[in-house]
Amino acid sequence: MFTECFNHVRTGHPLIHNITNYVTVNDVANILLACGGSPIMADDPDEVEEITTICDGLNINIGTLNARTVSSMLKAGKRAAALGHAVLLDPVGAGASRLRTDTAVRLMEELNVSVIKGNISELKALALGSTTTRGVDADAADAVTQQNLDEMVAFAKRYARTTGSIIVITGAIDLAADAERCFVIYNGRAEMESITGCGCQLAGMMTAFIAANPENKLTAAAAATAAMGLAGEIAFRSMQETDGNATYRNRIIDAVYHMDGDMLEAGARYEIR
Amino acid sequence: MFTECFNHVRTGHPLIHNITNYVTVNDVANILLACGGSPIMADDPDEVEEITTICDGLNINIGTLNARTVSSMLKAGKRAAALGHAVLLDPVGAGASRLRTDTAVRLMEELNVSVIKGNISELKALALGSTTTRGVDADAADAVTQQNLDEMVAFAKRYARTTGSIIVITGAIDLAADAERCFVIYNGRAEMESITGCGCQLAGMMTAFIAANPENKLTAAAAATAAMGLAGEIAFRSMQETDGNATYRNRIIDAVYHMDGDMLEAGARYEIR
Amino acid sequence: MFTECFNHVRTGHPLIHNITNYVTVNDVANILLACGGSPIMADDPDEVEEITTICDGLNINIGTLNARTVSSMLKAGKRAAALGHAVLLDPVGAGASRLRTDTAVRLMEELNVSVIKGNISELKALALGSTTTRGVDADAADAVTQQNLDEMVAFAKRYARTTGSIIVITGAIDLAADAERCFVIYNGRAEMESITGCGCQLAGMMTAFIAANPENKLTAAAAATAAMGLAGEIAFRSMQETDGNATYRNRIIDAVYHMDGDMLEAGARYEIR
Repeated sequence: MFTECFNHVRTGHPLIHNITNYVTVNDVANILLACGGSPIMADDPDEVEEITTICDGLNINIGTLNARTVSSMLKAGKRAAALGHAVLLDPVGAGASRLRTDTAVRLMEELNVSVIKGNISELKALALGSTTTRGVDADAADAVTQQNLDEMVAFAKRYARTTGSIIVITGAIDLAADAERCFVIYNGRAEMESITGCGCQLAGMMTAFIAANPENKLTAAAAATAAMGLAGEIAFRSMQETDGNATYRNRIIDAVYHMDGDMLEAGARYEIR
Repeated sequence: MFTECFNHVRTGHPLIHNITNYVTVNDVANILLACGGSPIMADDPDEVEEITTICDGLNINIGTLNARTVSSMLKAGKRAAALGHAVLLDPVGAGASRLRTDTAVRLMEELNVSVIKGNISELKALALGSTTTRGVDADAADAVTQQNLDEMVAFAKRYARTTGSIIVITGAIDLAADAERCFVIYNGRAEMESITGCGCQLAGMMTAFIAANPENKLTAAAAATAAMGLAGEIAFRSMQETDGNATYRNRIIDAVYHMDGDMLEAGARYEIR
Repeated sequence: MFTECFNHVRTGHPLIHNITNYVTVNDVANILLACGGSPIMADDPDEVEEITTICDGLNINIGTLNARTVSSMLKAGKRAAALGHAVLLDPVGAGASRLRTDTAVRLMEELNVSVIKGNISELKALALGSTTTRGVDADAADAVTQQNLDEMVAFAKRYARTTGSIIVITGAIDLAADAERCFVIYNGRAEMESITGCGCQLAGMMTAFIAANPENKLTAAAAATAAMGLAGEIAFRSMQETDGNATYRNRIIDAVYHMDGDMLEAGARYEIR
């Protein structure tokens, strides 16, 4: 099921336009190359429509947003949607400032967003108007756990129905849902939280997966999520005693570089609810 | 003495707002995670007051500054100071352009800066109006050495008195001083200068240290300085023959990831004058 | 021939002003340090003239350009040219948007550019007005090969004559030409394309090489190109089975860190046509 999704990325080499934060942008570019995609970054209003036109998908990440880049997100997003491109929104820090929350809401309202991917605090801020006290990290109190899994799956499906977008909620357990089905994904390691930008990297890679699988976006989003988590597991196995989060970051991208569809399918741990 | 300072970071997980340059921002985020802190980057005037409000400390770094981000530094800094948050200023390149020097001076005048951390050329530019000819690097002629140590310690204490801020001067020998006491820190390796952004990383980590030790800011600033230098020493011991500055960069962050308060206290080499 | 070029970088420590994209800027800074240069990044119109004045060379890279930074490129470029500094232009993505193409053309017209370095699609977009469909990557159909080498060498020399700049075309085979002579350089590995920013890194390093060899710019540009390719070869030899593009990126910078003029001369594979 995930095999084809990944193989389509490796054979199709989707070109992904990223309007993303400057903190993790280099890792986003390298993981896109690692999975078989090709990245281009452009965030000026004067060129984003042209740039996104030659691409296969658009990854919008609101970390380190500003007035100029918000304008670019809107322009690029409208053009990408008009062309039927995959559009992913990563509402980094939604709930942490009015600017971030309002921008995410506006992008969801004005664009045809294929996938909204965030942590539970960001998604709750958008769906329920709650605010976070931990900045760009999820609040532990909100985490998806085995105890509240039924409730969280229902929340994801409901919000997917409301928004018309695929909803991906990342955490110790990841969810990828449309209105009918929810993938519950168990891959990943807690140590990934000690690296800045695993979520941003997943957003970039996921945009390549949904761009390369236009008829199968939910499965592709789930496949990308499992691939990121599996890469975290594979990378961790090669960690030496003195390796820390900087080396782990490199090893995760390296693991994606060596992964293919069969490895992903064999290593993915998920169920569909 | 340094043990508790580091342990407070590991247990308190201070959330640090960084308005910093785009050259080294990823490393700043990863070293903050490595030491137990949590980073958020936000530099738009429309959100920095809200963002800094939910944080424990603010790290202002004027590398790659522009009119928009200078405005954000001022807004965020005033709010952070009003809330009693730790505020660190890293005057990268002060002396290399009027914009940088004037911005640093203005930030020092208008904000209640807890710590000013720079190399000797930057600090001399601010204190004495001298200019640098080596951009963001310290001029060798200015270096703190055993020969001029008494004079430099006196300079640091005097400038701490004038500014009301803790003064940290980094170099082969590091100084961390208030008006009364000066930590002289001997940790570190010359090879750290071959990595871009060791100073920026120290600024991020130091903000976490002072935020987690509000009653003990001078010791915390010295502890962070020693931790960075010690990480450079530990990382260097694991370097293989073909490893260079890129690998060294990762290994330093990794070393911080594995460090705790006892290791820091055992490895720190310093005296108080 | 390349020996002295590299040695001059190691002994002269040229300070290079970079106005470059935020995707690969950290790697550009670290490779500049690795080769013996010193980087400074500054992109605000209010300071770029002062900053470039204290530098030895200027590296202009139009990836992630915007109205503010384009203005800075022009101001810095005019000042640098007036001072006789080395000025390199890397027209990233020229042909992918009107803004990029027009900016590159304007920089070439208004500045005294020492070297224009790009992939074949970018150079053709500028020389012939063609457009690319692969964003910042070269179109495979355009590649320099043994079959079209004569034609490509002629194109490079002709464009060098037209522009008055040294023309460097990167790809599986690299060309560095003025109107009379063309270095054809065979160093490098295909796997380097799986890393974001090898081209940006080369641009930074090449600016240091031409700044340190003002009487010998063509040879210096060719030497830098060979050094980058050779670093890719050396780095690849130390790759372990699970290493991927993230580790490869670090190992390439590490290889430059350990390279000197004699190693470069011994490892360089090139001819002059």
